[in-house]
Amino acid sequence: MRAPLIDNLQYADFSPEIFAQMREGGVDAVHVTIAYHESFREMVLNLEKWNRWFEAHPDLIFRGTHAGCVTRAQETGRTAIFFGFQNPSPIGDDIGLVEICHQLGIRFMQLTYNNQSLLATGCYEDEDTGLTRMGRQVVREMNRVGMVVDMSHSAERSTLEAIEHSTRPVAITHANPHAWHAALRNKSDRVLRALTEAGGMLGFSVYPHHLAGGTDCTLESFCGMIADTAGRYGSEYLGIGTDLCQNQPDSVVEWMRVGRWSKVIDYGEGTAANAGFPPMPHWFRDNRDFGNIRAGLLAAGLSETDTDGIMGGNWHRFYDAGFGPA
Amino acid sequence: MRAPLIDNLQYADFSPEIFAQMREGGVDAVHVTIAYHESFREMVLNLEKWNRWFEAHPDLIFRGTHAGCVTRAQETGRTAIFFGFQNPSPIGDDIGLVEICHQLGIRFMQLTYNNQSLLATGCYEDEDTGLTRMGRQVVREMNRVGMVVDMSHSAERSTLEAIEHSTRPVAITHANPHAWHAALRNKSDRVLRALTEAGGMLGFSVYPHHLAGGTDCTLESFCGMIADTAGRYGSEYLGIGTDLCQNQPDSVVEWMRVGRWSKVIDYGEGTAANAGFPPMPHWFRDNRDFGNIRAGLLAAGLSETDTDGIMGGNWHRFYDAGFGPA
Repeated sequence: MRAPLIDNLQYADFSPEIFAQMREGGVDAVHVTIAYHESFREMVLNLEKWNRWFEAHPDLIFRGTHAGCVTRAQETGRTAIFFGFQNPSPIGDDIGLVEICHQLGIRFMQLTYNNQSLLATGCYEDEDTGLTRMGRQVVREMNRVGMVVDMSHSAERSTLEAIEHSTRPVAITHANPHAWHAALRNKSDRVLRALTEAGGMLGFSVYPHHLAGGTDCTLESFCGMIADTAGRYGSEYLGIGTDLCQNQPDSVVEWMRVGRWSKVIDYGEGTAANAGFPPMPHWFRDNRDFGNIRAGLLAAGLSETDTDGIMGGNWHRFYDAGFGPA
Repeated sequence: MRAPLIDNLQYADFSPEIFAQMREGGVDAVHVTIAYHESFREMVLNLEKWNRWFEAHPDLIFRGTHAGCVTRAQETGRTAIFFGFQNPSPIGDDIGLVEICHQLGIRFMQLTYNNQSLLATGCYEDEDTGLTRMGRQVVREMNRVGMVVDMSHSAERSTLEAIEHSTRPVAITHANPHAWHAALRNKSDRVLRALTEAGGMLGFSVYPHHLAGGTDCTLESFCGMIADTAGRYGSEYLGIGTDLCQNQPDSVVEWMRVGRWSKVIDYGEGTAANAGFPPMPHWFRDNRDFGNIRAGLLAAGLSETDTDGIMGGNWHRFYDAGFGPA
């Protein structure tokens, strides 16, 4: 069977049209964000919305819970949808909700979004105090049940401590190397080395704020950066996590950034002059454009095998090792 | 492999001691009540408590989700714990929570406890208006996902309408025939005929208020009643649902009866003079006494095969047909 195509981070305004595009693009699995600042009950409402989509469109999508679902997706011509949180808000201060959320299909959880959480420090805080007391306990519990620790939005020290403390490999599902584009959300050599040496995965983001040159970033620059990263850390630790926010109104990027934690606006990676979702680069507009990235990787000199791994094989292996009980 | 031993209703004050008694008694599976008047979030807290027991006592118990878990329990010398609600309180007015609860392992839900619910009428109401608009929708949704409709505490018309409306067999997990003991909670011939003609199951209760003679009911009377019921409706529709409330303080029976719906006391099946949990009959005190019932059934003239079915084989077959998607 051909290597699977996996996008390990999307937060689109999902709809049957987008599910059809996933099929058109041959996407076998997508990890979708279902919570930023939601309470447990609000997150469950988001799960209910997905359950209705699964019921209404069984020919296009189904709920993914383990690596075998990716294979099943390939065999049945559908897309397996895996769930994750970009913030630990849904579990609040209740560690028992980690296992409950795993039972509901949650497979990734960021220990923080941009702010300090009950577990660790986000990348926009002034001070990074690393893992909290609860953070250390929750990482152990995530390790136990098979929920992947995702440090995409976390600050440096917190990220290094999570990698160190976790007994299972950690993921940075959507970010790029800081050396290529010095954005606050992109990751230092130190983090990427610690991550990959511990068997963790980096998913390359196509979100313009993470790209050198932003929306104008060329496919050649993006894929050259991936080839360079493969040379530096090993291609087997690399995958795609586009951070595709297709069709979302700008009110949603405001929700992502501000939630209910502030009464005044915070622009996050944006600015007052550029507050909304930035336009995507012309070579990646939606799920139908993964072929461009694949071609770009081959053109950048990566082998067919390495390219297969980066386009999904590596995430598939990581799912297999990460989603079950320890 | 020997026929399994299944008790399809308990609400004990569970503890490692009781789990050890389940093993001593050779009980392969137990359906436990995890909600009466709990909100969704409170019910999840109860699930979290069970998850901690499963983690701490994997040598004794594990979470049961489908019929195969009963076989696994037999093979590994443990007890599979299946979950159910005695009231639809946890789903409130949100039909999407039916599937969420099924994903969390809930396999039985009573449409009512003693009162009118959003779905149907309980057996203590003056007027029984049958299935509500939401009740009809929820029965369909339970049919779809594989959650068994349980009418143990519901009023007559509501019960008949549920049996009629449900496309899959219904259960009365814990009650006895009204003809044997004319308690409000026991079931009429009309209900038992409709139930069993539609492939549904009756679980015989050992709760003293459901027994002819109460606590003093003899094993011979109880087993004779079962043999008579088998002759009338067919033994294949019969099982055990003891309603064992072992070690519960009387505050718990008050919670079961009053919850938060009344500021004044309601005695339910009890009376002001006999408000607490009644003492169990001497021949069934806890999970170690199923051998008495088995011996009583054989003594009452039931065949070995029929007895095997009533002691667990019939519930096992019902689980197999009932717990998966339609």
